[in-house]
Amino acid sequence: MRYLWLGAGGLSLKRARDAPQGGESEVLVRVRLAGICGTDLELVKGYYGFRGVPGHEFVGEILECRQDPDRVGQRVVGEINLGCGECEACRKGLKTHCPQRDVLGITRDGAFSNYLGLPAENLIPVPHEMSDRRAVFCEPVAAALHILDDVKIDQASRVVLIGAGRLGQLIAQVLHLTGCSLSVVARHSSQVELLASQGIRVGDEDEAGAFDVVVDATGHPSGLELACRLVRPRGTIVVKSTFHGPAEVNLSQLVVDEIRIVGSRCGSMRHAILVLEGSRIDTESLVDSVFPLEQGIEAFQRASQPGVFKVLLDCRI
Amino acid sequence: MRYLWLGAGGLSLKRARDAPQGGESEVLVRVRLAGICGTDLELVKGYYGFRGVPGHEFVGEILECRQDPDRVGQRVVGEINLGCGECEACRKGLKTHCPQRDVLGITRDGAFSNYLGLPAENLIPVPHEMSDRRAVFCEPVAAALHILDDVKIDQASRVVLIGAGRLGQLIAQVLHLTGCSLSVVARHSSQVELLASQGIRVGDEDEAGAFDVVVDATGHPSGLELACRLVRPRGTIVVKSTFHGPAEVNLSQLVVDEIRIVGSRCGSMRHAILVLEGSRIDTESLVDSVFPLEQGIEAFQRASQPGVFKVLLDCRI
Repeated sequence: MRYLWLGAGGLSLKRARDAPQGGESEVLVRVRLAGICGTDLELVKGYYGFRGVPGHEFVGEILECRQDPDRVGQRVVGEINLGCGECEACRKGLKTHCPQRDVLGITRDGAFSNYLGLPAENLIPVPHEMSDRRAVFCEPVAAALHILDDVKIDQASRVVLIGAGRLGQLIAQVLHLTGCSLSVVARHSSQVELLASQGIRVGDEDEAGAFDVVVDATGHPSGLELACRLVRPRGTIVVKSTFHGPAEVNLSQLVVDEIRIVGSRCGSMRHAILVLEGSRIDTESLVDSVFPLEQGIEAFQRASQPGVFKVLLDCRI
Repeated sequence: MRYLWLGAGGLSLKRARDAPQGGESEVLVRVRLAGICGTDLELVKGYYGFRGVPGHEFVGEILECRQDPDRVGQRVVGEINLGCGECEACRKGLKTHCPQRDVLGITRDGAFSNYLGLPAENLIPVPHEMSDRRAVFCEPVAAALHILDDVKIDQASRVVLIGAGRLGQLIAQVLHLTGCSLSVVARHSSQVELLASQGIRVGDEDEAGAFDVVVDATGHPSGLELACRLVRPRGTIVVKSTFHGPAEVNLSQLVVDEIRIVGSRCGSMRHAILVLEGSRIDTESLVDSVFPLEQGIEAFQRASQPGVFKVLLDCRI
């Protein structure tokens, strides 16, 4: 088997003679396609100090499932958080916030490999009609949809999105579906063109204090600074960026203008599948390239170029 | 007439020969008692660059009211925000967020004077039974109550308050009334003793990630840092501090733990009067001292001492 390994010296391609086996409680999955996201690039820079196999956006097929042999051959995507099942968060159904949680490709070996293991309950069947190239977007689409779980956005809302990279593009599409008045602050011409082709407005960086909701998907501290400038009094800033290090907030403005800042992370994969079964979210335009796992290092180099959207890894080859 | 004047050289006591007159649209109020709060101390340090008469917590009596002469002699407290009445915020009843607003004692001449002027609609009658010493607490009690407008807190909530100064003590009492499980992080022995006498628990600075709601009333950037440590995943931090300068936020924790940060400022004076008509909020224990306006400079010195609660100015003398 082959896999990408993040060690003290950075990312490298490794080979092992034997394929792994499914455990008592885990299901063995052959990975078909996996996606490289901003968090993977941050992991390689040292974010979280993770050592292991990265990768948490994937579609695969079940190879071995002791609890339910009927599932063998099933095409699946995966919920990436594994909770302890015992704590208060897990009992409330919030395993994404279990203090003991394991997270695929972030705290435990992930999807940039021929094989991965996950508990059966984390593996969600993919409809037959949905291609691998579409199903591999379930995880980031879930993250984009999750914004709507925590913030009310409707046709009356004036919304600005800062950052139109790989996650930002999906967020833009999800926000656009709500019917809100949306504009996007984008940096690269590839981002602007794709948004324009979907009828999404670009601009409005100068309308200070005008927006009910500002979504920061820049991955930079400067995103929060701009968000604070664009949000209206009593408005909401949603932070979707993950990056290493602190950011400065003007607390006095936060209090005087009674602004709300909301952190937002993983969403429901089942919800994402439902939305992706429809045709309203365009994923195909986001696929920049597909590299075989064997060329994983080159794939990471490509993914780290400015303005590049989704780089996929074909993990069967 | 006498008043405290904040100029380039700091705070000074001034005298003028004539009393002011009420304008066409404003009512002339003789100030009886006024309170010094943390914002006043920050103003004197240069926060907002205000030059004029500070003071926004007061109780007074109407001297002259052209629109409604029947109100002459009425004892009143005042809503401190004056909106333009035309903009979107004002039309929504949010004059506290009018971009053109004037704020008593913060952007326009305030209460540390024998006289002040406010529009009739900003002046709210004080019930006969309520003493001046109690009515003067309406503004900070409104600010404390306003937390409950924006964050759901009930008997099921685990809440910690950081900071137990003059505003913090009122917030502690308001939170205690909700029946929530409350503890307070307090620094000075006077603060701890007063809380203990009201049956409010002090401590819990070490219970990281344990609280549904954390209220920061410290007035220091370190308050937000501790708040981030104490809040649970998907919990809420309410920032009640106003101070000059930026604070650092760990954006990665904000996103991963999906924390919500809410800025909170002024509340409803009418609501505060209703609550102060009851006996559940103890204001008398918070009165440190009453200085005549003539000794306003000494009053400010007293108010800036650590562990000192409310210093009042008797503005009639």
